[in-house]
Amino acid sequence: MNAIDELTDSFSRLPGIGKKSAARLVNYILKADNLWVKRFASQIDHLQEIIKPCSICGSWTENDPCPICSDPLRDRSVICVVEQPQDVNTIDSSREFNGLFHVLGGVIAPLEGIGPSQLRIAGLVERVKSGTIKEVILATNPTVEGDTTAMYIQRVLAPTGVKVTRLASGLPVGGDLEYIDKLTLARSFRGRSSF
Amino acid sequence: MNAIDELTDSFSRLPGIGKKSAARLVNYILKADNLWVKRFASQIDHLQEIIKPCSICGSWTENDPCPICSDPLRDRSVICVVEQPQDVNTIDSSREFNGLFHVLGGVIAPLEGIGPSQLRIAGLVERVKSGTIKEVILATNPTVEGDTTAMYIQRVLAPTGVKVTRLASGLPVGGDLEYIDKLTLARSFRGRSSF
Repeated sequence: MNAIDELTDSFSRLPGIGKKSAARLVNYILKADNLWVKRFASQIDHLQEIIKPCSICGSWTENDPCPICSDPLRDRSVICVVEQPQDVNTIDSSREFNGLFHVLGGVIAPLEGIGPSQLRIAGLVERVKSGTIKEVILATNPTVEGDTTAMYIQRVLAPTGVKVTRLASGLPVGGDLEYIDKLTLARSFRGRSSF
Repeated sequence: MNAIDELTDSFSRLPGIGKKSAARLVNYILKADNLWVKRFASQIDHLQEIIKPCSICGSWTENDPCPICSDPLRDRSVICVVEQPQDVNTIDSSREFNGLFHVLGGVIAPLEGIGPSQLRIAGLVERVKSGTIKEVILATNPTVEGDTTAMYIQRVLAPTGVKVTRLASGLPVGGDLEYIDKLTLARSFRGRSSF
C-alpha cells in the first residue's frame, strides 16, 4: 500500500466520505500549495492538544472554562442541555438563547450500552443544586433516544424544584405539510398554540 | 479564530466539503483516537514529499518510473492518454487495458488560459516517435474541452503515422434512454454497431 492509498484510506474513515471522495481529496492535496498542506496537517496534528472539554459545561474550548461559561454578560439562571459539543455552536449562533450550556456527550441508548452514568448528567444536577439556576431547557434531539434522555433528566431534576422545559417540536419553518412525517405532524397538533 | 474554526476553514477548502461537513469532520477528529489522528496528520504532511509525478507517463508515483511504466508484463505498444493522474487508476482498475499511460495534466481550455504548451503533449509525441508505439488511445473526457484536446492531439500525432483512436461515447450501461441527454443519444446513434 503506497502513500496515496494510505491517505485515501484515512480520509474514507471520516464520516460522510466514501472511497471516491477520499481519492478526490488526496488528489487535491497532491496538487495543493505545499505551505497550505503543511499548515493543514499541523492543524490536525495539534487539535486534540489545544482543544479540551470545558470542565463546567463540557463543550470544546481552548481555555478552561470556555468563553460562554466565563462570559459575565450571559444569563446565568438558564442552562440549555444539549447532546453534543457542536450543538452549542448551532444554538449559540442562532442568537435565540443567551444563557449557559451543558453538554451531555450523547444520549441514553441501551442498545449501544450507553446508560445515564456515561453521560454528564451528575454534573448537571450538581450545577442546578449549587447555583442560581432557575430553568433547565432540554434541547436533546427530537428522536426516541433524545426524548428518553430528556424524560430521564426531567425526573432526575424534579427533586431540585428547578423549572424544566423542552424545546418545541413541530413543523419546520418553510416546510411543506405534504412532506411532513406523521410523528412530526402529531407533535405539531399536540403542541399547537392559540393565535 | 480558535483551532476548531481554523481546521474547519481548512477542511472546507477541500473539494466537495461545505461548512457543515467540515464542522462534522473536525468534531470527528476531536473525538478520534489520538494515535490515528497523529498518523493521519503525518500522512497529509508527507504526501507531497513521497509522491511525485512519473517522469515518463506523468501519473503519481512513489518510485520513478512508476510501477506501470516499469512493468515488463504490460503491452508497450499501446498508450492510453488521460487528463488527470487519477484517471490512470480508474482505467487500470477496470482491467480492460494492459498498455501504458500518458497523463496530460489537464485539457485545452482557452477561457482558463490553458493551451497545448501547458499540457504534457510534447512528451507524448516524443514517446510515440522514439518507441515501439503502434496505437494511441485518447481517453480524455467526453466534454467540449476533452474532445477539443483529443482532436488537437490527433492532428499533432498524424505525421508520425501512429494509429490514433478515441474511447467510444454513448449510452452508459444500466442507463435509461428516458434520462439520457440529447448529445449522448446523438453520439450513440453515430457510433452504433451492427448486431
